[in-house]
Amino acid sequence: MDKIITLTTDFGLKDSYVGAMKGAILSLNPYAMIVDITHLVSPGNIIEGALVLNEAYGFFPKGTIHVGVVDPGVGGRRMPVLIETDRYTFIGPDNGLFSLAIQKEKVRRVINLSRKKYFLKKVSSTFHGRDIFGPAAAHLSLGVDPGKLGDTIKRNVLKNVPFIRPKKKGGLITGEVVRIDSFGSLLTNIRKEDIAGHSRIEAEINGVRVKGLQKTYSDVGAGRPLALIGSSGNLEIAVNNGIASDVLDASIGDKVVLRFSGTR
Amino acid sequence: MDKIITLTTDFGLKDSYVGAMKGAILSLNPYAMIVDITHLVSPGNIIEGALVLNEAYGFFPKGTIHVGVVDPGVGGRRMPVLIETDRYTFIGPDNGLFSLAIQKEKVRRVINLSRKKYFLKKVSSTFHGRDIFGPAAAHLSLGVDPGKLGDTIKRNVLKNVPFIRPKKKGGLITGEVVRIDSFGSLLTNIRKEDIAGHSRIEAEINGVRVKGLQKTYSDVGAGRPLALIGSSGNLEIAVNNGIASDVLDASIGDKVVLRFSGTR
Amino acid sequence: MDKIITLTTDFGLKDSYVGAMKGAILSLNPYAMIVDITHLVSPGNIIEGALVLNEAYGFFPKGTIHVGVVDPGVGGRRMPVLIETDRYTFIGPDNGLFSLAIQKEKVRRVINLSRKKYFLKKVSSTFHGRDIFGPAAAHLSLGVDPGKLGDTIKRNVLKNVPFIRPKKKGGLITGEVVRIDSFGSLLTNIRKEDIAGHSRIEAEINGVRVKGLQKTYSDVGAGRPLALIGSSGNLEIAVNNGIASDVLDASIGDKVVLRFSGTR
Repeated sequence: MDKIITLTTDFGLKDSYVGAMKGAILSLNPYAMIVDITHLVSPGNIIEGALVLNEAYGFFPKGTIHVGVVDPGVGGRRMPVLIETDRYTFIGPDNGLFSLAIQKEKVRRVINLSRKKYFLKKVSSTFHGRDIFGPAAAHLSLGVDPGKLGDTIKRNVLKNVPFIRPKKKGGLITGEVVRIDSFGSLLTNIRKEDIAGHSRIEAEINGVRVKGLQKTYSDVGAGRPLALIGSSGNLEIAVNNGIASDVLDASIGDKVVLRFSGTR
Repeated sequence: MDKIITLTTDFGLKDSYVGAMKGAILSLNPYAMIVDITHLVSPGNIIEGALVLNEAYGFFPKGTIHVGVVDPGVGGRRMPVLIETDRYTFIGPDNGLFSLAIQKEKVRRVINLSRKKYFLKKVSSTFHGRDIFGPAAAHLSLGVDPGKLGDTIKRNVLKNVPFIRPKKKGGLITGEVVRIDSFGSLLTNIRKEDIAGHSRIEAEINGVRVKGLQKTYSDVGAGRPLALIGSSGNLEIAVNNGIASDVLDASIGDKVVLRFSGTR
Repeated sequence: MDKIITLTTDFGLKDSYVGAMKGAILSLNPYAMIVDITHLVSPGNIIEGALVLNEAYGFFPKGTIHVGVVDPGVGGRRMPVLIETDRYTFIGPDNGLFSLAIQKEKVRRVINLSRKKYFLKKVSSTFHGRDIFGPAAAHLSLGVDPGKLGDTIKRNVLKNVPFIRPKKKGGLITGEVVRIDSFGSLLTNIRKEDIAGHSRIEAEINGVRVKGLQKTYSDVGAGRPLALIGSSGNLEIAVNNGIASDVLDASIGDKVVLRFSGTR
């Protein structure tokens, strides 16, 4: 059974960690199709991992097993979990990494991954991706019922990332930059829905005002900033043929204020 | 049908983009074998993408589908295309990205990817790799005829990258550095054919003269510069156990002058 | 036959090299399952490659073919080899890259890869990963007997990396930092076995003393240094939620001195 198993981690790409984890999975199921989402989440940055996973997971076919390992508390008291939803299964540490994704899914059950029988034979205290999460995904891909991997626990014990929603006040929306991508574009926490019904939008960031909502980058001249709804459905501030984070001297957490001067 | 689909993009490896695109492909054909050529083309650098794709594509088996997405004009007026050749199919934006590769292939037909039926259900204006090109490749890998994906257009409308050929004048060949690889070696636009028949070659770059044409790096002492025909068939200036771009203070676009003092 | 072929190289991820090598393998066996261990070994750093491969190879299923290409002497006098062990086959240059791994395996035979019939048709002098090692792995994955790829040679001609074992003297163990991972943690050459039977351990590096042997990172406060047995079974010096290489200003080769004040 060649199920798809995706990996989202902060392991980096120069060490042996990704390889060892894939080896552990393939030792149990040599036919698993392993797909990397990314291994370059900033070390220990759970919010960044949750955002990246949230952007990508929903494009995979039903039945995909999403393994996420951004796990600064590895070997400590955080719980190893399996979250089964209508469409997908998520496996990793319970530290909020899956909290943005599962908000949008229908959770069926949550399992505390405690059955050592389904771990790697020798379990380290510092590499549960290789020793617990990878093997759990491999067993699942072979058809093992999630319930065999541990006890069912209540969904409401799951941790959430402290994700800040934009504030609406006095006709303004104040959001913030939550991620900067490889192109230097600024992804915000302001969703398409937040600005639905408004026309004539003006976004302000670090004292720079960007008028209008464009459809794509080349709608403005080269080197000019613009606002658009990005490919993940959130407001994005970019620079056509340029690096918005440099041009606008922007960092994660910078405020983005939206003004409206009309409705549609 | 487990066809090979290669990806060459400037998406970077830390974002969700590569994962989302792979998910979109696998949602249509879970048995597609997706192979990364690279996702680290410099953002928006079409020439660099064309060069990397040109070096790698020909080593894949006949029937491989090569998807390339370096697409600064995404969502604008550039056309999404499928180029079918005797050996391969190329899918991506018509901006020159495939122009070096298809010069060497026999083009059968070119399709303007316009049939929305073969797109992702919701198409963004900024991520056609995920929404149009990936799905087109997936449909093709399932056996859909390219002609169903859009209208056939004339080959000669396809854009070319402004690739500069070396100049031959007064017994000299003047080329330039077109790419610097991860080892710091300088790949030039001077081809093996350009220097065929000549012996006693001397290359000059940034005032440094490099005598002779070696077979491999260790033919000169450690730290010494050398010229050789690189693995892609072009003249390469390297430093044995060293970083040529540092040692020779070289950048893309730097002139490389070849002198000959004999023929063979 | 869909055998697993792993790749460990210093090719980097921005060039065409990894893609071309995968294409060469898939042209011979389109069903090979190729798994990247890493392509980010520091250019030409054989010891680093040997360490990374050594950490990962053993987690793959029996029968896996491990291809390693960190090959500064490519095209020169170093021998292209295939090393068959009870569990795995290793293919690459004979320069010590596999020496740490095969110390732990039972070597059956060593083959000098000399039969041109099993090379790519045109062999370059500078890219044997694509032209010799990849194709050898592909042929092997198709069931070709290793003995057909060249003559059997004696195991004891194989090169070793100059790997320094820690020194034990006067109740002290003096080892060194051999690798720094993506988290900035310091991996040493001191093995779990070297400190077995001792309790109350104190590690000193660059004048900083770290008391005790922890189980995991969060056993000490955030920002505090700690010593533990890492996931690969060697002593590791890390900083909880921090970057040990920065905090301790540590580099590869730095001495790590272990003192003991008790036995168990």
